[in-house]
Amino acid sequence: MATFVQKYGGTSVGSVERINAVADRVKRWHDDGHRVVVVVSAMSGETNRLEGLGYEIAGQPDPREMDVLLSSGEQASVALLAMALMQRGCKSRSYLGTQIRLQTDANHMKARIEDIETAKLDTDLDAGIVPVVAGFQGVGPNGDITTFGRGGSDTTAVAVAAALKADECQIYTDVDGVYTADPRVVPTARRLESVTFEEMFELASLGSKVLHSRSVEFVGKYGVPLRVLSSFEDGPGTLITTEDRSMEQPIVSGVTYARDEAKLTLTAVPDVPGVASRILSPIGAASIEVDMIVQNIGGDGTTDFTFTVRRADFDRAHEILLATGQELNAGSVTGDDKIAKVSAVGVGMRSHAGVATTMFDALGHEGINIQMISTSEIKISVVVEERQLENAVRVIHTAFGLDDDAVDEEVD
Amino acid sequence: MATFVQKYGGTSVGSVERINAVADRVKRWHDDGHRVVVVVSAMSGETNRLEGLGYEIAGQPDPREMDVLLSSGEQASVALLAMALMQRGCKSRSYLGTQIRLQTDANHMKARIEDIETAKLDTDLDAGIVPVVAGFQGVGPNGDITTFGRGGSDTTAVAVAAALKADECQIYTDVDGVYTADPRVVPTARRLESVTFEEMFELASLGSKVLHSRSVEFVGKYGVPLRVLSSFEDGPGTLITTEDRSMEQPIVSGVTYARDEAKLTLTAVPDVPGVASRILSPIGAASIEVDMIVQNIGGDGTTDFTFTVRRADFDRAHEILLATGQELNAGSVTGDDKIAKVSAVGVGMRSHAGVATTMFDALGHEGINIQMISTSEIKISVVVEERQLENAVRVIHTAFGLDDDAVDEEVD
Repeated sequence: MATFVQKYGGTSVGSVERINAVADRVKRWHDDGHRVVVVVSAMSGETNRLEGLGYEIAGQPDPREMDVLLSSGEQASVALLAMALMQRGCKSRSYLGTQIRLQTDANHMKARIEDIETAKLDTDLDAGIVPVVAGFQGVGPNGDITTFGRGGSDTTAVAVAAALKADECQIYTDVDGVYTADPRVVPTARRLESVTFEEMFELASLGSKVLHSRSVEFVGKYGVPLRVLSSFEDGPGTLITTEDRSMEQPIVSGVTYARDEAKLTLTAVPDVPGVASRILSPIGAASIEVDMIVQNIGGDGTTDFTFTVRRADFDRAHEILLATGQELNAGSVTGDDKIAKVSAVGVGMRSHAGVATTMFDALGHEGINIQMISTSEIKISVVVEERQLENAVRVIHTAFGLDDDAVDEEVD
Repeated sequence: MATFVQKYGGTSVGSVERINAVADRVKRWHDDGHRVVVVVSAMSGETNRLEGLGYEIAGQPDPREMDVLLSSGEQASVALLAMALMQRGCKSRSYLGTQIRLQTDANHMKARIEDIETAKLDTDLDAGIVPVVAGFQGVGPNGDITTFGRGGSDTTAVAVAAALKADECQIYTDVDGVYTADPRVVPTARRLESVTFEEMFELASLGSKVLHSRSVEFVGKYGVPLRVLSSFEDGPGTLITTEDRSMEQPIVSGVTYARDEAKLTLTAVPDVPGVASRILSPIGAASIEVDMIVQNIGGDGTTDFTFTVRRADFDRAHEILLATGQELNAGSVTGDDKIAKVSAVGVGMRSHAGVATTMFDALGHEGINIQMISTSEIKISVVVEERQLENAVRVIHTAFGLDDDAVDEEVD
């Protein structure tokens, strides 16, 4: 008798029909003798609807009230799923963040979970009851409702699984696992049997959108076995493992991308210590997130300093950089808000050389110009023109032997 | 500096535009130096939408889960109104039933308020903050969310006003006060300056739909001054008073009606003690509410026993009565599910004779047959054919001098 925490996202509970389908699925696991806790998101579209109302009323809605507003979406969906389970003769009971004392810090709209009271959940599980827990929400130090940001229901699920020492945390979504690339961009992309949580973290934070990145942090911290599955069809999904995989595994596990990036360059910056900080501090002070940073050292005692930001922050960052450039007596500010980032991710890179060369060769062969390069232990990212993004993803995917057909050939 | 509790119903907060209008109104009271607590319902249509989802999923949804589901509607509206107030520079903060420990009994979907913790509200009011409290919801003995049934936000408002010893509880609605009759049925109906809470109780419970009847009980119990006003136009509304009015007041304050009634008769019942209880007990056991009861004693040792129920309960009540009739060896069961009830209400009846005669004369003159009669200290109700309902209301309204023009003539 194993304990499973199952998380169903907004699309999986997006209608009465789908809620009923989720109830059928949960009941099967329950009837098989497992202890099942379910975590659900708001019905799809609901969080957007509520958020829209909030922004219609206040340009900058109060974060405390935004959390009260948004968390009402999950409140409705837990009640509906609990009802659907009871309708099937499966005992169930819904819980809000406040009811299981899902304690967080005081940061509204991006709270971090600190503690969960598992007494009620344990009692229910012992009594054959399926607890249905509202995702995305907790309770702050002073009893206020807090939320965890978009995708926060994943974090709830992993945190609940960690607290219960569950055998597996299953994230049900509209894809049937983690893919080597976005199948909409790369038709030959294939499902991975498993990825390490480090790869997963990169894949999730780079925009493959399968899992909330904070939930993956939890996996790393508490070693919760995590599986991503489809809520629409049966299948093994993808296991997110903590152990390093063997040498036979492909060097690169997947290729991800991020659109909506922009880059800014300040030219002829005096090449003296502390200058990078002087450029980036005002950007950070304006709450603009900087992603990649490249500094090209010239021979004339000056340097070109380039970094990327989200496209939405481009104009503000540009303005700030103009002021900084004047202060530093630097050259001109140039920018491009039509760029995108492509990354190859794989723990295999740690033990393999030449990965970067394979990637650059493939792009060069296709005539795709690399504007910036950034590397980490298990990831190589390049910036390309946005219009070349999809082609770049496919080329890299093929180059690392990730295509479905190519894999079959290798296995033979 | 007075303390006001203002309650805004679903129509008053039915859109962003209307929420903004409510915020403007609340701010005016606040800027005038008053201490204001606001209680709001869910946006109009929202409770119906949520309830619809619940009944779509489960024919008989679990009451605990129904309360979790339905209370999410008020959660969204309090957050939106608090945001709208802040947007206007008026400090505000939303509270759910759980957050101000609005303690109730354990009866889901029809809970009764037992206690309210006013500490947070008092602190806010002292700091110039406008607390916005979610109507309709509380917290049961074991921390579960409870709700008070339709219209329950009125009860929240009155209970909060009682707990805070507020100077006035203002119920903002889509009508500008309590009328002598439903203006849609009686065009000459007029707004009452004041009614006693006893009259209000009769008027509300009989279907004039201005106030939740339980809220009026609170008014009686705690002596909260209550006023019904329009949220769409300015005006004095109608004050609900606790004191008896003077003799100059009209004998009848208003005429109300209830559609969707049905009556059932068991004929030739042995006229022995305890027989009424034997007839009504199985009806009550089936949770069918019985309203009027009439027993006609014949000369042959048997009696005809007639009572009214809601039309929706007619078929079930009929079935139960057939079984009871056989057990009692009574005559036949007859019924009519096309009846309606009209009532004249007024505390003046206590000190005036002949009220019933005036009412019966007026109906007889109009050729409207009275099927049943029931009287209480401040009310006379008659059952008529449903098709004659509107005519009956108008005739009685005129007979008691309640028509707008008629009143002017009397004053002159």
